[in-house]
Amino acid sequence: MSQLSDVSIIGLGAMGWGAALSLLRDGFNVYGVDVRSEALEQLRAEHGKPCQSPAEAAKLAPVVMIFVVNDAQTEEVLFGQDGAVAAAEAGTLFINCSTISPSSAISFGKRIESAGMRAIDAPVSGGSARALRGEVTVMASGKSEAFDIAGPLFDAISSKVIRLGGEIGQASRIKMINQLLSDVHIAVAAEAMTLASKIGVDLATMYEVIINSTGNSWMFEDRGAHIVNGDYAARSAIDIIVKDLGIVSAEAESVGSAIPMASAALGLFSEAEVEGYGKEDGAAVAKLLGKKSGASLPGVTDPSVDTA
Amino acid sequence: MSQLSDVSIIGLGAMGWGAALSLLRDGFNVYGVDVRSEALEQLRAEHGKPCQSPAEAAKLAPVVMIFVVNDAQTEEVLFGQDGAVAAAEAGTLFINCSTISPSSAISFGKRIESAGMRAIDAPVSGGSARALRGEVTVMASGKSEAFDIAGPLFDAISSKVIRLGGEIGQASRIKMINQLLSDVHIAVAAEAMTLASKIGVDLATMYEVIINSTGNSWMFEDRGAHIVNGDYAARSAIDIIVKDLGIVSAEAESVGSAIPMASAALGLFSEAEVEGYGKEDGAAVAKLLGKKSGASLPGVTDPSVDTA
Repeated sequence: MSQLSDVSIIGLGAMGWGAALSLLRDGFNVYGVDVRSEALEQLRAEHGKPCQSPAEAAKLAPVVMIFVVNDAQTEEVLFGQDGAVAAAEAGTLFINCSTISPSSAISFGKRIESAGMRAIDAPVSGGSARALRGEVTVMASGKSEAFDIAGPLFDAISSKVIRLGGEIGQASRIKMINQLLSDVHIAVAAEAMTLASKIGVDLATMYEVIINSTGNSWMFEDRGAHIVNGDYAARSAIDIIVKDLGIVSAEAESVGSAIPMASAALGLFSEAEVEGYGKEDGAAVAKLLGKKSGASLPGVTDPSVDTA
Repeated sequence: MSQLSDVSIIGLGAMGWGAALSLLRDGFNVYGVDVRSEALEQLRAEHGKPCQSPAEAAKLAPVVMIFVVNDAQTEEVLFGQDGAVAAAEAGTLFINCSTISPSSAISFGKRIESAGMRAIDAPVSGGSARALRGEVTVMASGKSEAFDIAGPLFDAISSKVIRLGGEIGQASRIKMINQLLSDVHIAVAAEAMTLASKIGVDLATMYEVIINSTGNSWMFEDRGAHIVNGDYAARSAIDIIVKDLGIVSAEAESVGSAIPMASAALGLFSEAEVEGYGKEDGAAVAKLLGKKSGASLPGVTDPSVDTA
């Protein structure tokens, strides 16, 4: 096989755009598709090559990476009108980098392979800042021959690739479990901060104690610091968390699995979305809980809240 | 002040017994009280001095450490019939090592000081094995002069003392917040393991991925390993977690604070207690979730569960 030089990216949102820039930096020819014309202009300005449809992009490169928002968009760009799979040359490698439900990941993988193509299940995480630096984390499963092709691409976009075997879907499953844990931990970090504030505990002191105690979590340590500092700039936005926990909920329901903790968190994040916090960081559920509880939080002003 | 040599311990359960042995090892005269006569016999066998009532124990030493189960028992041993406070010499130091509600800790502290005594709020954690080794963690608040007296005792029983200022109640508050986080993290760790098993993820692989990802928590890392190994020996028993989250729930209700995540966890642990798992480790909520979900877990056999 000749050295890989061309790659197409479908979806130039936060994560796809970071991947595109990282690949351009590493010398790849990058073809890109997005419904937003300004995204295509930006790609052109960075010496990438805008395409008008998934079909066009798929014809131009032996590897197609998909960075869209959900299952429905993935279906559309792969198999819809002007979809990528029907247009691609046999043997083209499709890498699904979107966070979609494990059952959809499995189903898309099967349909891609049935069409004579190759597939890797490779949901990414890490947020837009790390995406721009080419430092996302990739959880990936798929056949070895597909990974032989994809290696240089993963090197360009990620600082960590976790290989999870040959079975398509395995990566999306473990990504989903990680999401379940992360999102519940964000919710309870916000709850702990709100209750502590309400009962008169100094949040900075409490934070220092907890991160050295059995109550610590990766998310408490990260998002807890943001709450102490009153910083709600989105690392993972509430809109996205609602989508991700929606996947957990649907998947659990389809197999009959009980998920009381994820359900409680989904209820809380959904309510926060309805209340208008959708674009803020997940930690902003603390604002909702603060409002409900009459608790004051650093950097949050609300007339209904006592400031004692 | 002459060097402290005598200390009384009220309550020789798992944590109190560990403290008694640790203090005896460090050369203290240890007076002990317990409702169970076998605990008093064991104390005598270790060269400690059994007493018949809190009042008798309080008369014999300038420091009284309390290791009982809840607020009601604390009330009883301090202020009930043959209670410790009325019998003690003026200036006796009472160290509350039980996990009780912050409001009770504050109220007991005030009544102890009003009676001319000294008080430290010092809930301990770490489980019975660490208690036996003299390696519990103590979160403690109270006046400096009280800490000057208590120093050698804390050295004997603990590997870590977190000083949280002069105000009685502050230690119990932060301990409670740590408990809220820890117990929710145990519940969601069990939920994640159960769902993963149900959808066909290898638990050992998933565990390794998660402990290096954003979904990690202190409890996932610890209790998750126990679930992967099918080991449900009690580190913190479900009975105790139900009690601790009951404190969180009552305290949050009394100040009007919303705690949806702790409430979901309390519901789950309470159900597990009703189902007969009360003496097992908190991680055994995985067994309950496994049963509800028809998911198989390592080391857990249940005829209602599919073993696919």
